[in-house]
Amino acid sequence: MHIIFNITFIYCIIKIIDNNKKGFDTMTLNINPTKIICVGLNYIDHAKELNMKIPEEPVIFLKPTSSIIYNNDKIVIPPQSHRVDYEAELAVVIGKKCKNVKKEDASNYIKGYTILNDVTARDLQEKDGQWTRAKSFDTFCPIGPKLVKDVDPHNLDIQLRVNDEIKQKSNTKNMIFTVEELIEFISSIMTLYPDDIISTGTPPGVGKLNRGDIVEAEIENIGILRNYVI
Amino acid sequence: MHIIFNITFIYCIIKIIDNNKKGFDTMTLNINPTKIICVGLNYIDHAKELNMKIPEEPVIFLKPTSSIIYNNDKIVIPPQSHRVDYEAELAVVIGKKCKNVKKEDASNYIKGYTILNDVTARDLQEKDGQWTRAKSFDTFCPIGPKLVKDVDPHNLDIQLRVNDEIKQKSNTKNMIFTVEELIEFISSIMTLYPDDIISTGTPPGVGKLNRGDIVEAEIENIGILRNYVI
Repeated sequence: MHIIFNITFIYCIIKIIDNNKKGFDTMTLNINPTKIICVGLNYIDHAKELNMKIPEEPVIFLKPTSSIIYNNDKIVIPPQSHRVDYEAELAVVIGKKCKNVKKEDASNYIKGYTILNDVTARDLQEKDGQWTRAKSFDTFCPIGPKLVKDVDPHNLDIQLRVNDEIKQKSNTKNMIFTVEELIEFISSIMTLYPDDIISTGTPPGVGKLNRGDIVEAEIENIGILRNYVI
Repeated sequence: MHIIFNITFIYCIIKIIDNNKKGFDTMTLNINPTKIICVGLNYIDHAKELNMKIPEEPVIFLKPTSSIIYNNDKIVIPPQSHRVDYEAELAVVIGKKCKNVKKEDASNYIKGYTILNDVTARDLQEKDGQWTRAKSFDTFCPIGPKLVKDVDPHNLDIQLRVNDEIKQKSNTKNMIFTVEELIEFISSIMTLYPDDIISTGTPPGVGKLNRGDIVEAEIENIGILRNYVI
């Protein structure tokens, strides 16, 4: 018994040192946001793919908190849509109430990073013009699997797989507006509260989800956000 | 002392009977919504004014809860905009958690009605295409002055005044989609929680607010929502 305890203790110490070496701390995702602010076109490679010019300012939209699900939860395709897409994104979780933050100070207001799949009913997005309905269905905002601190948000491989097939593959260094610039821009409009989420846009390769699919959004040093489509 | 008590008691009884005669109960606005869902073009006279055809389905958008202020609070014109508009609207406050509500049952999920001024930075709305930034600034969602039950939401005079001058004047009977139809439509997309707000669109006559203005949105049997523009 004593030996087992000692071995476990030593293992824990090694793991802690190991994590510190990797330079990031992780915690399970236990957040309660008042709002989710998403950014439209924010990847240079995605803009090129669409032959669109680089926007001068971020275009933002909101997803309701009622659309949140977590790792291993089910994405439900609603009867209103015939084309539901994945969009893997790096998400920033706010740590402190703030307004009018300068980009130089923005890192003081970040609690950590996680992954967000900005699920979108593409047909309704095109029909409505406004994006809200298309992005607001229940289960359309998977987040997780955990919150990670002390990573460089501008140098992380980001990938999305459907049934193990790679669909999106980029790096967060291709973002047009940095995390700090987004916090400055958004906090010049609205007060941000602890746990509020800013999702930083998706790289090229968006496409359709079908019932029965397993969708995995992976970001380097954060983890894999896995959801089942029904 | 005894006489004063009796007079007060009789006065209260008279007031209660008086309120019952008017057919509505009022309570001060003490709500804590998780989201605010607004409807775009929803007045026949407004659609005619703009020469737009009647939409087949409501167009919805979200305002963040961080934009809420109350009666007598100040609307702050942000430096980013040179054209901030008022929009008087009837707002529905949800009473019970619900999803996929049929319009026949919708009245069971209504806590009451209040007034909402959907303040909008018109220049940014036109610039962005998406309406979120234009409608999400802090102080851009005055609500109040109180919550009223037992009114007919489809036969209420609605009016907006700037410095006592009438700018909007209509009746909620001109709404294209009824309150019940809006609850059916929105709850088919997202789960509604107690205190969530659905704002039902604005009648014709929207226009600009200037610093120093007093803006009053009035709805028959609900009251006057007064705010100061700075």
